[in-house]
Amino acid sequence: MNAEIVAVGTELLLGQIPNTNAQWISQKLATIGIPVYRHSVVGDNLERVKDTFQLAQSRSDLIVVTGGLGPTEDDLTRDAAKDVLNQDLMEDAVSMERIQMYYEKNNRTMTENNKKQALVLSGASVLQNDEGMAPGQIVEAAGKVWVFLPGVPSEMKMLMEQRVLPYFRNVFDLKSEIVSEMMRFIGIGESALEDELSDLIYEQKNPTLAPLASEGEVSLRLTATGESDQEAREKVASIKDAVLQRVGSYYYGSDEVAIESRVRDLLKEQGLTLGAAESLTGGRFIEKMISLPGASSVCQGSLVAYTPETKEQVIQVPNFIIKEFGTISYECAEVMALNAQHLLQADITVSFTGVAGPDPSEGHQPGNVFIGLQYCDEKPIVEHYYFDGSREKIRNRAVKKGYELLFHKLKKASS
Amino acid sequence: MNAEIVAVGTELLLGQIPNTNAQWISQKLATIGIPVYRHSVVGDNLERVKDTFQLAQSRSDLIVVTGGLGPTEDDLTRDAAKDVLNQDLMEDAVSMERIQMYYEKNNRTMTENNKKQALVLSGASVLQNDEGMAPGQIVEAAGKVWVFLPGVPSEMKMLMEQRVLPYFRNVFDLKSEIVSEMMRFIGIGESALEDELSDLIYEQKNPTLAPLASEGEVSLRLTATGESDQEAREKVASIKDAVLQRVGSYYYGSDEVAIESRVRDLLKEQGLTLGAAESLTGGRFIEKMISLPGASSVCQGSLVAYTPETKEQVIQVPNFIIKEFGTISYECAEVMALNAQHLLQADITVSFTGVAGPDPSEGHQPGNVFIGLQYCDEKPIVEHYYFDGSREKIRNRAVKKGYELLFHKLKKASS
Repeated sequence: MNAEIVAVGTELLLGQIPNTNAQWISQKLATIGIPVYRHSVVGDNLERVKDTFQLAQSRSDLIVVTGGLGPTEDDLTRDAAKDVLNQDLMEDAVSMERIQMYYEKNNRTMTENNKKQALVLSGASVLQNDEGMAPGQIVEAAGKVWVFLPGVPSEMKMLMEQRVLPYFRNVFDLKSEIVSEMMRFIGIGESALEDELSDLIYEQKNPTLAPLASEGEVSLRLTATGESDQEAREKVASIKDAVLQRVGSYYYGSDEVAIESRVRDLLKEQGLTLGAAESLTGGRFIEKMISLPGASSVCQGSLVAYTPETKEQVIQVPNFIIKEFGTISYECAEVMALNAQHLLQADITVSFTGVAGPDPSEGHQPGNVFIGLQYCDEKPIVEHYYFDGSREKIRNRAVKKGYELLFHKLKKASS
Repeated sequence: MNAEIVAVGTELLLGQIPNTNAQWISQKLATIGIPVYRHSVVGDNLERVKDTFQLAQSRSDLIVVTGGLGPTEDDLTRDAAKDVLNQDLMEDAVSMERIQMYYEKNNRTMTENNKKQALVLSGASVLQNDEGMAPGQIVEAAGKVWVFLPGVPSEMKMLMEQRVLPYFRNVFDLKSEIVSEMMRFIGIGESALEDELSDLIYEQKNPTLAPLASEGEVSLRLTATGESDQEAREKVASIKDAVLQRVGSYYYGSDEVAIESRVRDLLKEQGLTLGAAESLTGGRFIEKMISLPGASSVCQGSLVAYTPETKEQVIQVPNFIIKEFGTISYECAEVMALNAQHLLQADITVSFTGVAGPDPSEGHQPGNVFIGLQYCDEKPIVEHYYFDGSREKIRNRAVKKGYELLFHKLKKASS
């Protein structure tokens, strides 16, 4: 069995939007073990849409079509499908009622062309669309399975998850279940992680382990197949245990978790509050924490001081430190972390000072960064780093490193 | 004439990456007037790659292929092209030398399979790749033009811009030149802009005007075609003048410019410095400014105070204001802007306090935001807004609105 994903829409061929629908659907089909052999994109032209559907019918068992179901003259998916699948179009009463209600609820008058959106193929299972107007459709014809979905990503995703994927599991009697987990690590490099796990990575076939480096951290994707969901889950759990035994001290969470949300959780558990004193990171460190819901119970704030004068005035960095050591120094980072603790009335503070570039500053090259950490009544610690890359990259690496230091400190304190 | 963009790579069919190459190439071809009729994606399977190439040859005049040019066994573009285009593969001496040098420079030993990357079709114009190893190729065969490019975006883009697009202009003798400009506006809604310009938008055919709303601002794309670049440019310039006469007071810049960089420029011109006092925006306002190179000459910093206590302690908001009016109030926003000016020694300060959600705070629903603006020695002004949407959206709208107020204030001061 093999699948093809067809996107209909001239906006894709003009490059106005990327075809993220095809990417998302591919990921979902991969997790239930349906191989995707092709993606096709075609514009709003009836003959070419029909060609594309005919070709898909001739070479693919399952065809998922996105887009072209709207109310305008450019929306041609229904008309093309009618001809290629040789089925009539008929009005679906439930869809019609939903479309009318949509207009009533929004106090707008429905124009005639909107009725078109309630038309479905005569043999279709209709998938009612709670997020928009045009329904989705599943049609079995000439030994092929067709799925038609709206192009709006939120509508497409909702219908795929709630209706289409469960249908596939049923109708294709999918025996093998795939379970995967993305383990996330911080404080260990990709090659060091690979070294520690090389036998598992290269000898394991099921589950497989695939390391992946990203900015300032490393992930490891575990993927297992089994005859049941439970069997696949157990395989993942068992290899995860083995991984944790070797590199568990760098592990901070799985899948969608971000390091700052793990830090937030640890702060909450330990009843501690966080503050910052930021120069080159310019508020980005505390911003990441405040982006999270529930930040107010653990986050006091940040003193963003971008000039020597504001470091003196706002963070009370003594003038002699700036004169003697400069603002880009161990000494300045230390007193920034220390003073911010008092000024922000926070239990823990992190300070950042350094050169993001593009130009050198105070005789230091871009990439030199000092990060201070003041934990409760302990002596402050300061680390000096050199980060490679652009202004943007240096600032991101500094922020990530701040959370790394904080995470390991909090983890140690809780153990 | 019509074009097809073919991407080769199983990673696309697994949904690991989106096909942004096709989007980027489509945009570029649109700007020189070459219509793209199809995108195709196929995996690393020789038979299917050959099928896809044959199909492209049968239906498209110009075929741009990305990916499958690397050194591994999965890189099949060369082999498929050899068969479909019926040309031999031969080693390109210059490419071979570059690949060897690449390894020498990096002190690594070249493995045998890397030699494969120097193979090109016998009739190809070779496009040397300064960013990587495998060269690009342009081949004319059986009345069709083929372009083969590496899948790594930076390599593909460099070759497209430096070699392929100039070649297309030449070989296709493109008579019509397309020039476009994206004008950006802040402080006017999409429908108000459309109203002001409706005759131009609906009656103009060349140039065309297309409005586009994005978060907190509106853009207008002007596109003109002409027989020469100059003619097209003149058409754009003339319609731009007409647009500026009607809605020029909301215009802040064109193409890639962001509102914060316009504000930075105005601050520089006027020799003024900026500071902020941030609660719900959590540092995001000042972060946007500090992300820009050259921020240090105009940006003092920000007092990020996320709790009532830090507002008292750090921004010196009097306790009676918090008790009597709450932190989410005109009064609090006003004193935040006022005090930050003094504390940060900034000429202008912007303050933000409000509810980002998901939960209400101090009896206010999410979306209620107060923004204060303290300009030099003028009386501070405070505006109350209601922004719809998620926590993320509310915070972004607040930041954008802060820059909008600042931009209009600075523009007025300079005129």
